This record gives sequence, structure tokens and C-alpha cells, in this order.
Amino acid sequence: MKIGVVGGGQLGRMLGLAGIPLGFQFRFLEPSAQCPAGQLGEVVRTPFDDQDGMERFAQDLSLATYEFENVPVESARWLSQRLRLDPSVRALAIAQDRIAEKTTFRELGIPVQRFASISIAGDIDAACAALSGACVLKTRRMGYDGKGQAVIRPAGTVPSHAEVLLAWESLGKVPCILEEFVNFSAEVSMIAVRARAAGAHAEFACYPLVQNDHRSGILWRSRAPAPCDADGGLTTTARDYIKRLMESLDYFGVMAVEFFVTSRGLVANEMAPRVHNSGHWTIDGATTSQFENHLRAIAGLGIGPTEPRGASAMINLVGRMPISAQVLEIPGAHLHLYGKSPRSGRKIGHVTLNAPDESQLADSLARLERLVEWA
Amino acid sequence: MKIGVVGGGQLGRMLGLAGIPLGFQFRFLEPSAQCPAGQLGEVVRTPFDDQDGMERFAQDLSLATYEFENVPVESARWLSQRLRLDPSVRALAIAQDRIAEKTTFRELGIPVQRFASISIAGDIDAACAALSGACVLKTRRMGYDGKGQAVIRPAGTVPSHAEVLLAWESLGKVPCILEEFVNFSAEVSMIAVRARAAGAHAEFACYPLVQNDHRSGILWRSRAPAPCDADGGLTTTARDYIKRLMESLDYFGVMAVEFFVTSRGLVANEMAPRVHNSGHWTIDGATTSQFENHLRAIAGLGIGPTEPRGASAMINLVGRMPISAQVLEIPGAHLHLYGKSPRSGRKIGHVTLNAPDESQLADSLARLERLVEWA
Repeated sequence: MKIGVVGGGQLGRMLGLAGIPLGFQFRFLEPSAQCPAGQLGEVVRTPFDDQDGMERFAQDLSLATYEFENVPVESARWLSQRLRLDPSVRALAIAQDRIAEKTTFRELGIPVQRFASISIAGDIDAACAALSGACVLKTRRMGYDGKGQAVIRPAGTVPSHAEVLLAWESLGKVPCILEEFVNFSAEVSMIAVRARAAGAHAEFACYPLVQNDHRSGILWRSRAPAPCDADGGLTTTARDYIKRLMESLDYFGVMAVEFFVTSRGLVANEMAPRVHNSGHWTIDGATTSQFENHLRAIAGLGIGPTEPRGASAMINLVGRMPISAQVLEIPGAHLHLYGKSPRSGRKIGHVTLNAPDESQLADSLARLERLVEWA
Repeated sequence: MKIGVVGGGQLGRMLGLAGIPLGFQFRFLEPSAQCPAGQLGEVVRTPFDDQDGMERFAQDLSLATYEFENVPVESARWLSQRLRLDPSVRALAIAQDRIAEKTTFRELGIPVQRFASISIAGDIDAACAALSGACVLKTRRMGYDGKGQAVIRPAGTVPSHAEVLLAWESLGKVPCILEEFVNFSAEVSMIAVRARAAGAHAEFACYPLVQNDHRSGILWRSRAPAPCDADGGLTTTARDYIKRLMESLDYFGVMAVEFFVTSRGLVANEMAPRVHNSGHWTIDGATTSQFENHLRAIAGLGIGPTEPRGASAMINLVGRMPISAQVLEIPGAHLHLYGKSPRSGRKIGHVTLNAPDESQLADSLARLERLVEWA
């Protein structure tokens, strides 16, 4: 069976690596000339909204997915009328709009920080009245890796019209969300998979909670199971939230939800309707990787076990390659490169680390962190 | 870096899957139109001895390997003069000729059964005089999966001229080796990897000993660590033998040696100068797979840990596909398909099983064996 993947980046590449042993072939829809997934299948090189290109991409496919959440919803809807597209268009549409996303969370009883919508200058006063303290103004759409954000640290107790207006102008006056800043002790993510019923297989499973650290808005490090959740309480809560969300969205495949850990418990930040950077450790650190499970879930092969193998971590490589042989000297290290040429701020690969327990992992992680420099 | 691989079968496919995350690209030399490795890189479609094709294959490569031991030695030698080719041409030449192989084993003090060479009818009398009991006549070259063999069960205590002549004629009077039949309790293989010195990495490592069961001369099942070697004595001996062999051949990359377990200890049967079917369990059952280690060893990235994760097994899929979703319901099962259409007698994939210990493995293995039928 040939699976269509909208997007040909590193997530597509890793889907290909996981799917070829299962007997799948791949076709990627990708506008860029050189793409990380190009080594793993056919590439239909076309913009995501080009009708002719979409026709060529969809030709003879019965199943498609996406690895990039900024696929135009119209294109996804067109595809979903031609073939089976998972995750659902509804999930995609919600994930693309921070207001819809937070509203969905709130309606499902998943805690979110206070937020307000700013589409026109006239929305600013009401937004200021609704929130207090430091805030983050984010574009409703197309933000990723900390891009499209402005922090507002008000002079008074609440943000003023002038402060918010200035931030909104700096983001180009596009529709935005103003969010109250969350005072968090850690950032975590839950990665789960949901499948259509297949024999004796489970229909839902989640990986251990992952603890994430960012640098300049880009994921630097993930650790799983999350050290901040020694008693498993956060895991149970996050699992409940993501299950609720997946069921309500008629969602099949892998999903990630990012949370802040606060004194009041978990606060949901955002969802990704796809395999996720904070789940890359599963390639070497879980019985079944997030990539294999995404494909199995959407192709009716059932979910594979999500148990971790000991303790794992992942470090992203951004802009600069460390010396491979040195990285591979570290116990439990595995290298995953994306076939991209290094460029400042660009994710070019990651390293996973796996160890029998957290203390052995800490030693390897310290060594690895000394080797990896971002550019 | 682009690595050339002579041969585009399933071993090439799995080398590609292991090497792409390390940042390698691949070019395969393969005469067949459709080949399992074709999904993982460029294919130069040409016979193995075509000079023009070899030129195209070698173009701009600095490193090549082979996944098929019947590459013509002349072609390998030509390549080795143009670029770095590992494993060595000498290892390839020896592995292609059962007489050279057994002679090498014997010279290195690695036990082999008694054998004699039969190139012309005039050799038969001396061969009969040298051996006793049941014998196996094998073609010196190009035998695999039990092909090119004839068993001689002599009417008397030693094979007679007439019996051997008949068998030799049935094999087409090509140069043969007559081997004394070995009375064995088990068949095992040792898979090892040797690398040029690279930083703090080891230069030699081996996987746990593997116990193999065949059906109609084709590998049916591998189990690792080998249940027949509970005290590890065979492992120590096999490790010593293969290390001696690799060092004497100036060998870099992965090698497999198959042994019979007899009342007198291990008796070497044959070597494979490449990744090996009995090592496929390492994909899911060892910290570093044989495929990754082969590439790391020849590319100067050092050897990764070869420790097993609990107990593992592998079952080959020959001629007929079981239902994927049923296979994947078995705890610890991973599916590895080769992208080939099923045909009688053809290896189309394998399933690996991994469990915390041998008794849990036995349960999964029993379930899997009920699902897999060969055709």
C-alpha cells in the first residue's frame, strides 16, 4: 500500500523509515526542491494549495496523512473527500488557530490560561480588561518554534492599550491571541495514539509523559519519563485530557499536547495533530516508535506497545553538526540526521539517548550536552 | 556521504534503513528491475560484471560495501582499486569458495569437519579414502539456502567411487567439496563487527551467539542468546574463532560464521562476509543493529553496543504473507517486509520478537509459529 504524506520534512522522513519495514510505500507532497523525506519515496513537488499538484498527489492513493500542521484546510478537505485522510480535517483546523484550540481545550475541561482574541484594534480594550500581569501576544496562525510571538510585561498590574497595540503592530496586525503568562515549573508533553478498532489491539495508548526544555523558543531537550512526574500524577491527568480531546475530534493517529506544569496543575498550551519533536526519543526508547504507531493506527494495523525502555532523552541539533563519531561514543546514543545542510536556526537532526535508569541517563546527557552547540 | 552497495536485495534495504538516519545516502548496484533496496536510494541497474555499469556505480563514491557474497571477485577487485571497499576482497574470495573457506578455518585452528576437493573425476578416489560415513557433496561456489548440495549415505562405511560420482554428476560435474556429515545437536552463528580504530570506540565486538533452525535448507528461526549455550562457553569459543578470522583477513564490517554444535565442541560450517539473516533480530533486539554497526564500522563511526535487549527471536517469512495485524498483536513482534511479491520459496520478510526473558519469548514464539506458513 502507498501512503500519501502531505509535507516532506524530517517528520515525513521518519514516517518513511518506520513504514518501509511494514511494507508501505510513500508519496510526499512537498513544495521544496530538496526535502528530508525525498530519500524515502516519490515526491510530488508542488505548493500545498495547487489543484493540479494535489490531483497528482492523490492519484491512486487510498490513504493519506500530514506531517505539517500548516497544510491549508481547504486542501485537506479536498483530499478527505477523495481518500481517507487522518488525522481529521477538524483536528487540523483547530490546531491551526490558537483561539479555536484553546476554546476546544476549555470546552472539554482541559485547563488553559486566560486568553482573549485580538483581530482588530477595537478588540484590545476588552482583552486588556480580561487579563492581568505579564502576557504573551501570539499570531493565531502559523506560529512555530517561538516565531510570531511578543511578550508584554506591563508597567502596571494589567497590560495597557498602548503596550498591547505596540506588540500587535510588531506582529503585523494579523489576528492574534493575547494569553496570560503562565508561571510554570516545567514544560511537558503527552504523546498518544488512537486507532480504529483492529482485532485484539488497543484503540488508545499513550507514551510516558515527556519533560521538555526550550532554548530561544526551540525544543532543546526532551526527557522521558518526565523527571518532574515521579509519582505519575501528571501522567494520569495528561492521559485523561488527551484521550478526551482525541475522542471528541474523531481523531486517528498520533497527537501531541504540550502542557505547562504549574502550582495549580497542568495547563494546556497547544496541540500538534501529528508526530511530534518531543516524541523522537521513542525511536530508540520505546517498544514501538511514535512514527510506527502513527502509521499502524491510520492503516488499521493496531497500536504497538508504548512502554519505554528504561530512561530516554533527546537533544535537537540546530544549525551545526557535532562530530558524529564523538556523539556515538556516548553510551546509549543514537544519531538521527535529516539530510539537511546546516544553516543557522535550522533543525538538522537529533540525538536520542537511552539508559537503564535516570541516573545513568544523566551522565550520558551531560556528555552529550557538552558536545552539542547550536548555531 | 554516499555509500555504494553491491546488491540491492533485502540486506541492502535494511542497510539503507539503518544508514539514512546516520546521514548516509545510498547507491545500489543491482541487475534486477525491481529490488527491495530500490526504495532507499539510487539504483544502477547493471549486471555485476558489466564494466560500464561498474563505472557508473563507482562514479564519485569513496566507500562501498556488498550485501551479496557472489559478487564476481574481479569486479570487487576493480572497485577496491577505485575506492575503499569493505569487507576485503580477500574475505570475499575466500567466502565464495568452500575449499578456501574450510582451509582458512583449519589453518587458523578453527575446527572443521573432514573434507576433500573434487574438481575432476580423478579426485574421487582420494576423497573417498579420506572420509568416512555419510557425506555431503556441495558445489564449491554459488551455493546458498541448501541449493547445490547432494547427501551421500554410503552403503558401506566409506563412500564408494560410484556413489560420489553419481552425486557429482547430479551437481553438473562442477568443482565440488565432499564433506563428512557432522552429527550436530544444534546450529549456531556468531555475528561480529570489526572497525578501524575510531576514538574511544572498540575495534571488535560480537553479538550474543544465535541458535538457528532450518527448514528445507532455509533459515526458519533464530533465537538469541542461543538457548543451547546457557553457560556461555560456546559464545566464548565462537567469539575467539571469529576474532581470529577477522584479524587474519584484515576484515572491517560485519561478518557471520555458522557453526555446528557437536559433542566435540563447535565445528565451523561457513562464513558470510556481510550482514546475515541470523542477525536480523538485532534490529529490535540489540542496542545497535548489525546493519547500523556494519555501516559505522566501515565509515569510521565506531562500533555501537551489541548488548541484547532481553531475549529475541526471528522467523523468516517465505513465499506467503501472514496477516500483518495478527502478527503485530503478538507481544514484542515487529514486522520487516522486503517489498517483494510472494513467490514460492522466496524470502519476503521476517518477524522479530523481543521479550524480557526466554520464557516470555517462548509464548510469543509459539503464537507466531502458528501464524507463519511457508509456501
